[in-house]
Amino acid sequence: MEQTKAYIAANRERFLDELGALCGQPSIAALGIGLEETATLIEDRLTGLGAQVRRISIGAGAPIVYAELGEGERTMLIYNHYDVQPADPMNEWESPPFQLTQRDGRLYARGVADCKGDLMCRLQAIEAYQATVGLLPLRIKFLIEGEEEVGSPHLAAFAEQYPDLLQADGCLWESGGKDVARRFLLEFGVKGLCYVELKVRTASSDLHSMWGGVVPDAAWRLVWALNTLKDADDRILVNSLMERVRPPTELERQHLATIPFDEDKVKEIFGISAFIRGLTGVDLLVEHFYMPTCTISGLKSGYIEQGQKTVLPCTAMAKVSFRLVPDLTPDLVADLLRAHLDRRGFSDIEIEILGGIMPARSPMNAPFARACVEAARVTYGVEPIVYPTSPGSGPLYQLCRGTPAAMAGVSHTNCHIHAPNENIYLEDYFQGIHFVGELIRRFSE
Amino acid sequence: MEQTKAYIAANRERFLDELGALCGQPSIAALGIGLEETATLIEDRLTGLGAQVRRISIGAGAPIVYAELGEGERTMLIYNHYDVQPADPMNEWESPPFQLTQRDGRLYARGVADCKGDLMCRLQAIEAYQATVGLLPLRIKFLIEGEEEVGSPHLAAFAEQYPDLLQADGCLWESGGKDVARRFLLEFGVKGLCYVELKVRTASSDLHSMWGGVVPDAAWRLVWALNTLKDADDRILVNSLMERVRPPTELERQHLATIPFDEDKVKEIFGISAFIRGLTGVDLLVEHFYMPTCTISGLKSGYIEQGQKTVLPCTAMAKVSFRLVPDLTPDLVADLLRAHLDRRGFSDIEIEILGGIMPARSPMNAPFARACVEAARVTYGVEPIVYPTSPGSGPLYQLCRGTPAAMAGVSHTNCHIHAPNENIYLEDYFQGIHFVGELIRRFSE
Repeated sequence: MEQTKAYIAANRERFLDELGALCGQPSIAALGIGLEETATLIEDRLTGLGAQVRRISIGAGAPIVYAELGEGERTMLIYNHYDVQPADPMNEWESPPFQLTQRDGRLYARGVADCKGDLMCRLQAIEAYQATVGLLPLRIKFLIEGEEEVGSPHLAAFAEQYPDLLQADGCLWESGGKDVARRFLLEFGVKGLCYVELKVRTASSDLHSMWGGVVPDAAWRLVWALNTLKDADDRILVNSLMERVRPPTELERQHLATIPFDEDKVKEIFGISAFIRGLTGVDLLVEHFYMPTCTISGLKSGYIEQGQKTVLPCTAMAKVSFRLVPDLTPDLVADLLRAHLDRRGFSDIEIEILGGIMPARSPMNAPFARACVEAARVTYGVEPIVYPTSPGSGPLYQLCRGTPAAMAGVSHTNCHIHAPNENIYLEDYFQGIHFVGELIRRFSE
Repeated sequence: MEQTKAYIAANRERFLDELGALCGQPSIAALGIGLEETATLIEDRLTGLGAQVRRISIGAGAPIVYAELGEGERTMLIYNHYDVQPADPMNEWESPPFQLTQRDGRLYARGVADCKGDLMCRLQAIEAYQATVGLLPLRIKFLIEGEEEVGSPHLAAFAEQYPDLLQADGCLWESGGKDVARRFLLEFGVKGLCYVELKVRTASSDLHSMWGGVVPDAAWRLVWALNTLKDADDRILVNSLMERVRPPTELERQHLATIPFDEDKVKEIFGISAFIRGLTGVDLLVEHFYMPTCTISGLKSGYIEQGQKTVLPCTAMAKVSFRLVPDLTPDLVADLLRAHLDRRGFSDIEIEILGGIMPARSPMNAPFARACVEAARVTYGVEPIVYPTSPGSGPLYQLCRGTPAAMAGVSHTNCHIHAPNENIYLEDYFQGIHFVGELIRRFSE
């Protein structure tokens, strides 16, 4: 173990260069940019570790990189994605988004937190293990896709066609890291997602706003329709949606009460004076982990440049993302939304489903979960914090079903994930490499 | 008169070339593009007519071109503006916006309807009169500004500094033209305008939408705030606003009943199945001419490109334009809006006032109004339709106060004003030249 540490320290600069090369390659699934190139870069790194690598395509989807290496009784599946979110708004970045930049002890780049940092640190942990200990004591399967940020539209088909490739005793998931107090977290589930675009057209072209008294305005139609979805107290109003949500059990609430969640620090980092409805304590965590969300992620109509344009817009668009908890499914939510809008007289609002992810939670007492907790204890020197689920989403349901999974990564709460100036801490990155080495040891024991 | 007609016919191609040159010069007040260049182009044309031309600047405003020519008992003020609306969305134009294009008997270009067509046709009418009849029988004053599309922010100061320049017996205003049945219209007033930008910030940066359950979303705040301004029946809810509106008198309603307004044709042209609230007949015209509006002209928050981005936006913006009738003023409406939002708990919504125009109506029985009606009768061969006001806006209040004014132009209802594919009819343009010549004759008699 000391030898492994020394190896990692000796290769520190090269490891950062490798991470820089991966982050320097744009790979934006929403815009179809750089996906093939990034897949090739990762395949080459896996081949260098001695892995058997396969590039698998499902339909017109971005390449899925699958790889196997090591031998042993147990199998650990590692899930990552090489795609990232778009980088806009570009003008809010303090350094170029596709150029890994070190500043104040952090590494900045689009995707460094979500999840190129996790991916590269896992590859380097395996290199360090092989170089200092020898053959891997367990079988590792890598499943690295390129469409996570657009809802993994081809992963269900992959899981159906290649069920054997996903057989494993535990799955190390992407994402995760440290909380605002820099305490290491383990998360044992994901929320689902139903991402829709609402669109409305009210006339054949934009008009002069002098017609605003008598001709319908698309922006108003959209505002009124949206307003029926959530009230000003942030309560979701979509008919029959909240009735399907299981509140946490008494045991789950007791677990939440043990989680140290630094509310003031979170508020300070996000620049907010209060959480929604003034929530605090266990109630805040219930909302965060056990309840669905309904977020307007995008809104556009008419003239949005500087100054005035007195136009009556004929089209309007909103991107709405629902995060889902069991037993909500993307299809169910889309159906409820359609029925809700129709019932309120908004049949003219078109719903385009841009992506769906099933929610999933994984048991916290499986051997894999215990190995994660032990590896975290050794690496970070303290007991890790356990979240019942990530409030984010991922295709855990499609890939893992019966396999216990854990999120344990190199990110942190204020990493600006999906936003400008995405970052991780330099030291978290190297601790992450150590953690993966420890996990390989513990899970193969 | 036959000589004048022959002159116009002989110079048809050159007249169109001159219009093409004016439309080919971009002059976007909202973006500060091409204003000086366009002012110079117009000054040169006026000088060519023998006018005394002055370029007047108020503060940092775009140049105001003022010119005088002719001698006689009466004075006619001509008001135009050389600035135009921005051309976006660019991809919806069928020919380049700043290249005058003839297609199916129409002329397409940004500004050709609003109001470079009016301006050039008036200059050419004077040329034709001088070339075929001789000296102008009345004094003409031109007031041509470059900031109408951003609410004429410097015109009130101009009127205060140069009251003598505005002295006149009648004012030929910009805009106006034919209705959907291609009947010539005269309009004797304008609505006012209060154009505001509503802005809200809910956090220090955009966040991953996994925080949507507990951290406020700027787009939602804006939607809820907007929703309090107008109900889904398009009734303005801003506290105390509608109470200040004078409904039309019985005489005014009787006049409205005489106006031929082809509702089916308007609906067909705009691609709508019904007017707001299913309005029809006199009620529709009351709403159109005698009531204020509240239009969302622009809306933006978060991610608006293709595909999904699961972001929780920290800022949101709406551009809202109110068209005003007497006795609403821009300041009053802005004050009412602020008080309304505060009262509903939306003090966090910032209001930036981007522009204000006073409403104004002018008497329909003044000598100038009668001269307009007679000139229209002669030019178009039928009785013109008289509107009590344009539903659009313009700085009539600042410039005319006591002077009777009329809108009589070369535009038409389906001219796509302020929108892509703005156009006028080729024949309307040449009829407009004849009309101005007739007006010069009738008003000087």
